[in-house]
Parts: sequence; structure tokens; C-alpha cells
Amino acid sequence: MHFPPYRHRVLYGDTDQMGIVYYGNYLRFFEGARNEWIRALGLTYAQIESHGIMLPVMDCGIRYLRPARYDDLLEIPVTVTHTRVRIRFDYAVHREGESSALCQGHTVHACVNQQGRPTRAPDWLIEALKPGLSQVSALAVSRPVQTGE
Amino acid sequence: MHFPPYRHRVLYGDTDQMGIVYYGNYLRFFEGARNEWIRALGLTYAQIESHGIMLPVMDCGIRYLRPARYDDLLEIPVTVTHTRVRIRFDYAVHREGESSALCQGHTVHACVNQQGRPTRAPDWLIEALKPGLSQVSALAVSRPVQTGE
Amino acid sequence: MHFPPYRHRVLYGDTDQMGIVYYGNYLRFFEGARNEWIRALGLTYAQIESHGIMLPVMDCGIRYLRPARYDDLLEIPVTVTHTRVRIRFDYAVHREGESSALCQGHTVHACVNQQGRPTRAPDWLIEALKPGLSQVSALAVSRPVQTGE
Amino acid sequence: MHFPPYRHRVLYGDTDQMGIVYYGNYLRFFEGARNEWIRALGLTYAQIESHGIMLPVMDCGIRYLRPARYDDLLEIPVTVTHTRVRIRFDYAVHREGESSALCQGHTVHACVNQQGRPTRAPDWLIEALKPGLSQVSALAVSRPVQTGE
Repeated sequence: MHFPPYRHRVLYGDTDQMGIVYYGNYLRFFEGARNEWIRALGLTYAQIESHGIMLPVMDCGIRYLRPARYDDLLEIPVTVTHTRVRIRFDYAVHREGESSALCQGHTVHACVNQQGRPTRAPDWLIEALKPGLSQVSALAVSRPVQTGE
Repeated sequence: MHFPPYRHRVLYGDTDQMGIVYYGNYLRFFEGARNEWIRALGLTYAQIESHGIMLPVMDCGIRYLRPARYDDLLEIPVTVTHTRVRIRFDYAVHREGESSALCQGHTVHACVNQQGRPTRAPDWLIEALKPGLSQVSALAVSRPVQTGE
Repeated sequence: MHFPPYRHRVLYGDTDQMGIVYYGNYLRFFEGARNEWIRALGLTYAQIESHGIMLPVMDCGIRYLRPARYDDLLEIPVTVTHTRVRIRFDYAVHREGESSALCQGHTVHACVNQQGRPTRAPDWLIEALKPGLSQVSALAVSRPVQTGE
Repeated sequence: MHFPPYRHRVLYGDTDQMGIVYYGNYLRFFEGARNEWIRALGLTYAQIESHGIMLPVMDCGIRYLRPARYDDLLEIPVTVTHTRVRIRFDYAVHREGESSALCQGHTVHACVNQQGRPTRAPDWLIEALKPGLSQVSALAVSRPVQTGE
């Protein structure tokens, strides 16, 4: 299984008047990276929803290290860990070909059923995630990961 | 009935690296202006939807005259016209206290029922819009309005 | 000095197909709340920049408790603390008239000079912030605040 | 010279609570398509700016035909025409592999110098655009194009 990092070319519309990517836009890039990671597993987030499971974001955080700029080609490798009721994605944003990250972040997702109630992740989902969990991209951030909640 | 123009204070997140409001963000401001115009009639767009009528955008256009900048307080008066199957909003974006517009635009909306089919605007909606139609704000743009489709 | 909470009426453009405010858009709301808090002190962020001081975001985090929805009128009280080189804003997002928060978040800002170098906050800035620091809105979140870095 | 259409995978953050792409987000997609078209010519918009020429948007329009949805892979071929002082881009948004467009739009750009004054497009720019002008993608919309201003 191949997990190429999500890539995003920075638009004018991503920048602000400081000439750098607006701090809120990284959460869009993280969503893109998360979607592509799930797609590489052979499923899509749309399919997970069609099984009655939603993964709303409970928590997120971003550390801004150096700014990204217009026309930068960003690569965002993802590392995933989970408990039975939470899935955590860790993201690193790199300028293409650079090893040091511009920005690091994470999102923590709950498993929720169609009634909006927290639920344990079903076995088929845990199974589906497995090949991704062992896949830590060479670029991926080695920061400690919070696994217990 | 009082139709105060919608006001929006420009955020850093609205600007781009040219130091001006990104061209796509005006469509968000137009939505805000449209919502407030409907609210001033005593209804909300959410209520229109709850009656089974949706007003999706069919068409829009923007003319950019002068740039808006960070921290500008924008005022956006609205002029509304309609046929039996279309509603058209014309918008002008002004810096607070200035008479000349920074930008002008329009959106044309179809009346659509819950099955997504075009439908004639129901009488209650036409009646509800009436007090707003006669209300042309002093600031409003006097450009010709397309009424027949 | 009066610090009315920043208010934002949720647009269609703020929501996503789950029918709730998209998780990334809260960072725009936080920026609005931060700007208005500074404006209530009698200065603007633009003025701080004109004195050669920039306050880029180093770090942010959000906890999503309950979703905000289309047409909700959100109120966002702010609490501010600082060290000599960092300013921290804590935000709580409430539906108008409700005491429990929908979402809580924070941003940590560095003081940076025109060369982009970290610098101590100048006395005039520390002085200017003072009246705001003692002002904790009745709605404000009482979570522990990180003051030392 | 090869002009592959710009591609964008629709994010959750692009949709609104109607379950479709928010009407304002197409202007971001258009920017992406415009950037890639210029890049395929062997230059970048950043390089054009470094020669003291800016191409601000004067005018734009969008016709919404059918909605795009979450996870759709959109392709956006571009057609370009120009006069001596204006460049016009026409865009068509297709779901991958479909021939009929979901949405059509255009942007008209002025040539402006570093003082912000309208100027004639310099010869090097006209020359650089030439290979692209003859290139009409197979998918491109055959709507009449406004060449005189």
C-alpha cells in the first residue's frame, strides 16, 4: 500500500496581506491530507459515512514554525493512531523537497453513530485502518502521540 | 420597515498577499447582505427553506472597481427585483461613509421545490418580498436590472 | 472600558455538508474576536503593525464541544494573558444568550519586529493591553491559562 | 505544449449545508486553473509580478448549471483570449470523465504596472501567452468569447 503525501499548491486565496498562508487555512489542507490517507486505504470518507459512522473533529492544534508562501508546493504526510473510540491524525506541512516542517498539527476524531452518539469504532473500520497505521512516511513528524483519552 | 445595509469588518483572513480583499470573498459578503435583507422582511432564509422553497444561485457577477483593505468597515446595500421564477439581488460594496462603490455585483436565484425542480415563487413569498422591493437604499446602485429571463 | 463580545452570524458559506460550521472556520471567528478586543482598547492591530510590531500566531488549539449551525448568532468573549514575549488569547464561542460554550480555543502570538525577529513586547504595548487584561467577560472560559513559556 | 486541466478534489470545507459546493468557492478553483495554465506556458504568475506587471481581476461571472459535491474530482479546462490591455479566462468545471459542465465562468484581468496604473501588456507577455491561446482543450466550453472591451 502506498501513501504518497497529500500535495497542495498554495493559491493567492490561501495567503493574507502578511504575504503568508493564513493561519486558518492549514485546517483545510489537513482535511485534504486526511481524505487522501483514507483513500489510499481503499475506502473514502464518504463510504465510512454510508456505513453509518461519522468521525467529527473533537480537538485540533497547530504549531506554526515557518510560513508557507504563494505558489509553494506543500506536502503533508500523515501519521495515524487510535484507541477504540478516538482516531488521531498528526500532520506535518513541508515545502516540497524540504525535510524540515513549516507547520505541525493534529486532529482528534470521535466515532459517532447516525444518532450522533459516541460509539466504539466497528471492527471493519479498525481492520481497514490497519495497513495505514504501520505506514509512517519518511517525512512524518516523530512527536509523541496521545493515545489514551 | 428598515433595511440597514449589511456591515462587514474586513479580516486578515479576507485579504490576500496583494494586501486587498481576495476576489472570491465578496460572494461571502453578498450572502451576508442577502441574509440580512431577508431578515429585515421579518423572515429568515431558514424559514423559506422550511416551507419547501429553496433559492439556489443560478448566476452571479462582480465588477471590481477599487480594492477593499484590511480593517475596512464595508457596507453592502441591496436592491431586489423578481419575476415569477427568478429573484435577483444587486449589491454595492462601500467603505463606511463613502458614496462611491468599491465593487458591484449581482446574484440571480431560481425558485426550486424540495424535489429540486424549478417552480413559481408561491404567493406568500412574493407578498413577503414586497416591502423590500420598494425599499431602494440611498446608496443602492442604479445599474439596469434584468427582470425577464 | 467596555469589551462587548465579538458577534458573528453564521453564513451558509461557514457550514459544510454535515450541516454544521466547518471546523477550520472558527479560526476566522477567533481573528474577528481578537481584532475587536484590541479595538476596544483604543488601538487597532493595524496601528500595532505601524509601530513595527507584528504578532504572528505561533500556536493554536480548538476543542469542539457542540456544533454551531447556519444562522446562529455567535458571541465570542476573549480572555488575554501575556508574558514579556508572548500574548495568549483564550476564546469561547457561545450561541447568543446561552451560557455553555459550543467551542473553546486559544492562540499564542509572538512579538516580532520588522526584521521578523522575536522581540520583547515594548512598554507602550504592555501598557495598552493592561485595561483589557483585568476585563474578564462574565461568559469567559475559566480554563487554566498558560502564562510561562 | 501540454495543458492538462487543473484538477481539484472537493473537500468538506468546500461544501455547504445544502450538500453542494458553496457558490463562492468556484472563484478559488478558477484561480487554481489560471495559475496552472500560466505555469504550463513555462512561467508563473509570481514571475509576471517580478517583471512589474500585475493582472488584477476587473470582472468575473459564474453560471451554475449542476452542483458539484463532496469528493468529486473536478477538472477545469481554460480558454484564454486577450486584447492589448485585457486578458480574459473562460473556465468550465467538469466532474472527471464527464463532458457536460457543472459550471462555467470567466474572469477579465487588466494589465497594471507597479504604480497600479493600467498599461498595455508588454510584448514579452503577449509572446509568452501565444502558445496557450491556440490551445483549446477538448473539454473547453464553446461559448462566445468577448474579445473587444
